[in-house]
Amino acid sequence: MIINAAQIYKSIEAIRMQAPVVHNITNYVVMNSTANALLAIGASPVMAHAEEEVAEMVNIAQALVINIGTLSELWISSMFKAVHCARKKGIPVILDPVGAGATAYRTRTARELIDRGQPTIIRGNASEIMALYDDRSKTKGVDSATDSDVAIATAQKLAQTHKCVVCISGATDYIIDEEKILGIKNGHPLMTKVTGLGCTASALCGAFAAVEKSPFAATAKAMAVMGIAGEMAAATSSGPGSLQLNFLDILYRLTEDDINKHLKIED
Amino acid sequence: MIINAAQIYKSIEAIRMQAPVVHNITNYVVMNSTANALLAIGASPVMAHAEEEVAEMVNIAQALVINIGTLSELWISSMFKAVHCARKKGIPVILDPVGAGATAYRTRTARELIDRGQPTIIRGNASEIMALYDDRSKTKGVDSATDSDVAIATAQKLAQTHKCVVCISGATDYIIDEEKILGIKNGHPLMTKVTGLGCTASALCGAFAAVEKSPFAATAKAMAVMGIAGEMAAATSSGPGSLQLNFLDILYRLTEDDINKHLKIED
Amino acid sequence: MIINAAQIYKSIEAIRMQAPVVHNITNYVVMNSTANALLAIGASPVMAHAEEEVAEMVNIAQALVINIGTLSELWISSMFKAVHCARKKGIPVILDPVGAGATAYRTRTARELIDRGQPTIIRGNASEIMALYDDRSKTKGVDSATDSDVAIATAQKLAQTHKCVVCISGATDYIIDEEKILGIKNGHPLMTKVTGLGCTASALCGAFAAVEKSPFAATAKAMAVMGIAGEMAAATSSGPGSLQLNFLDILYRLTEDDINKHLKIED
Repeated sequence: MIINAAQIYKSIEAIRMQAPVVHNITNYVVMNSTANALLAIGASPVMAHAEEEVAEMVNIAQALVINIGTLSELWISSMFKAVHCARKKGIPVILDPVGAGATAYRTRTARELIDRGQPTIIRGNASEIMALYDDRSKTKGVDSATDSDVAIATAQKLAQTHKCVVCISGATDYIIDEEKILGIKNGHPLMTKVTGLGCTASALCGAFAAVEKSPFAATAKAMAVMGIAGEMAAATSSGPGSLQLNFLDILYRLTEDDINKHLKIED
Repeated sequence: MIINAAQIYKSIEAIRMQAPVVHNITNYVVMNSTANALLAIGASPVMAHAEEEVAEMVNIAQALVINIGTLSELWISSMFKAVHCARKKGIPVILDPVGAGATAYRTRTARELIDRGQPTIIRGNASEIMALYDDRSKTKGVDSATDSDVAIATAQKLAQTHKCVVCISGATDYIIDEEKILGIKNGHPLMTKVTGLGCTASALCGAFAAVEKSPFAATAKAMAVMGIAGEMAAATSSGPGSLQLNFLDILYRLTEDDINKHLKIED
Repeated sequence: MIINAAQIYKSIEAIRMQAPVVHNITNYVVMNSTANALLAIGASPVMAHAEEEVAEMVNIAQALVINIGTLSELWISSMFKAVHCARKKGIPVILDPVGAGATAYRTRTARELIDRGQPTIIRGNASEIMALYDDRSKTKGVDSATDSDVAIATAQKLAQTHKCVVCISGATDYIIDEEKILGIKNGHPLMTKVTGLGCTASALCGAFAAVEKSPFAATAKAMAVMGIAGEMAAATSSGPGSLQLNFLDILYRLTEDDINKHLKIED
């Protein structure tokens, strides 16, 4: 599957036109920056975590993003309820298993969300993805070349078992489903010095999945846009503070020409 | 009632001089940006939500701002307790009914806060204000020209019933009490691409109400300052990232001359 | 004890090389800016507050930072559990007693965390530090010259009783232990107009304490770096919005030469 600049830009136009509501149950650290990134790309973010209202909020949303970055019991209940409602309604569910592998609580919660919630898209770094299957959690925290292969194998098993798309983000972002694998080589190392850009990537997957039928294509497009905007922002930034600002400005004004110039896909 | 640049600037000077403590029980998404905006205008923000301490915190505050953007049961209890203490102490209470109309939980909580808490100022967008009275909640989410009229009628009923000031923010901000209505035409569309600027507006209403006896004048001044700073910031911003930064810088350095040059009031 | 630029820069290099994991249980307002400052200096921030996982998270951390800025019961339980684990493991614990003296809840919690948790470093402003001992809490909220002397006396008692380092931050930052006192005169008034830079200072104490055996030296280095980066950022900022951004950029690129040029220590 080849994703080209015209297709990516078509989805951006759809987001800007339709302003899909993306419901986020996410962590405290990134709520503000996630909402700002969704607004910048043209989506309508909502944040609501109370069990009393998640069902209704899912009902007005076109995508649901679940992020386990700052977990606690009440939030987990709401996550399960929201995922259940989203599956029933038929909107895409994106899971960001932040810190899976770092603590048993996170690993267990992420795995249960996958088993019982059947997310449409799972996005994490290599160590997080490896923690989602079997006893891979032992290899936590290190992202070596070997780990990359292990992560891809794990992602493929996850994709086959749960009929979902898995994205392993890193220097190369891998988008994986039951049959295919696609690599995107955009992005910049300075992006790792801004907190929550991984969470932003997951939220953008939600925005693209809201306007694009194929979850695989939606994930690839979101990751390409993240990488391109990050790369363009880094080029004019003197550190992580200005990167964060420039990233939002560029996301807001991204053109088809920008995408054309920067897109680096490997099949 | 006419508000002029000199009167607005006098209140800014009072805020900068007195640094009034504004106690916020607000949502997770905007806590940081709200605190920064209050600091930039010269106020002293405090954030505290535990039932164990809200009474004492209200006691050292000159205004209380309640924002229901990310609700849950414990927070609601604290909001009622804080509002009760604030009314008893006689300091202004500002209510921001974020998302009223979107879920029954929010609509009900906002209405109860109004009925039992008697806020001094209520600030929301048209759909939120419409959700606060009767069965207007059915019209949620759409801000058409007709809705604007409905919203104004709803705001007038609210103002009469609860002896409060209601502000409907939008392209024109309407400040409404039992007898009057004032329109402020400042602001810029790019402001809608930064999360939480509505919440910031409510917080600034708190800062102005802390130093100004008339809640109507305080609300008008706060909304004028929001709009002018946003407009000036947009003029030098290349997107929502830089707008957010420039807004704080401009708020911090706002002069009487700036206000004079930009103020657009319609009676 | 004299801290010079070479020693400070050596610690920065150690942080950049080792990327120590700093576990933060901190307040909602500053989570994002704290994480970004830790990333900018080269550390690896984690945020986790659930009682179910704090023990494991402490176990992968090289420092623990506890900040009571937005307290509630569940969070307090986790703070005690985390501090207990950190002491057992032998990693430094930094306490930021935000708002101690403002409410009994905060004062009591901060004092209990000191009594039962024996933090390695305590960092607060003069009124917060004064609230931590005896009946000093009555003098809350005012930072006069006299208060500065009272604060130093309180800090010395705290340091003696609890064998810890106490930092009183202000125009001059005082680093105090059982025997010594050091003043750092870096920083800029505009820093007080950005929310959470005090919290950032405490988090940086965590990063430096993770790579430096002496808690006294670690605190002095962290405060010097905060002040220098803030000062350099203020020089090119037109307000608190740009200060926040420039601060992160400068932290990320700070050189030994920068420190040499700006360091102002008084013995």
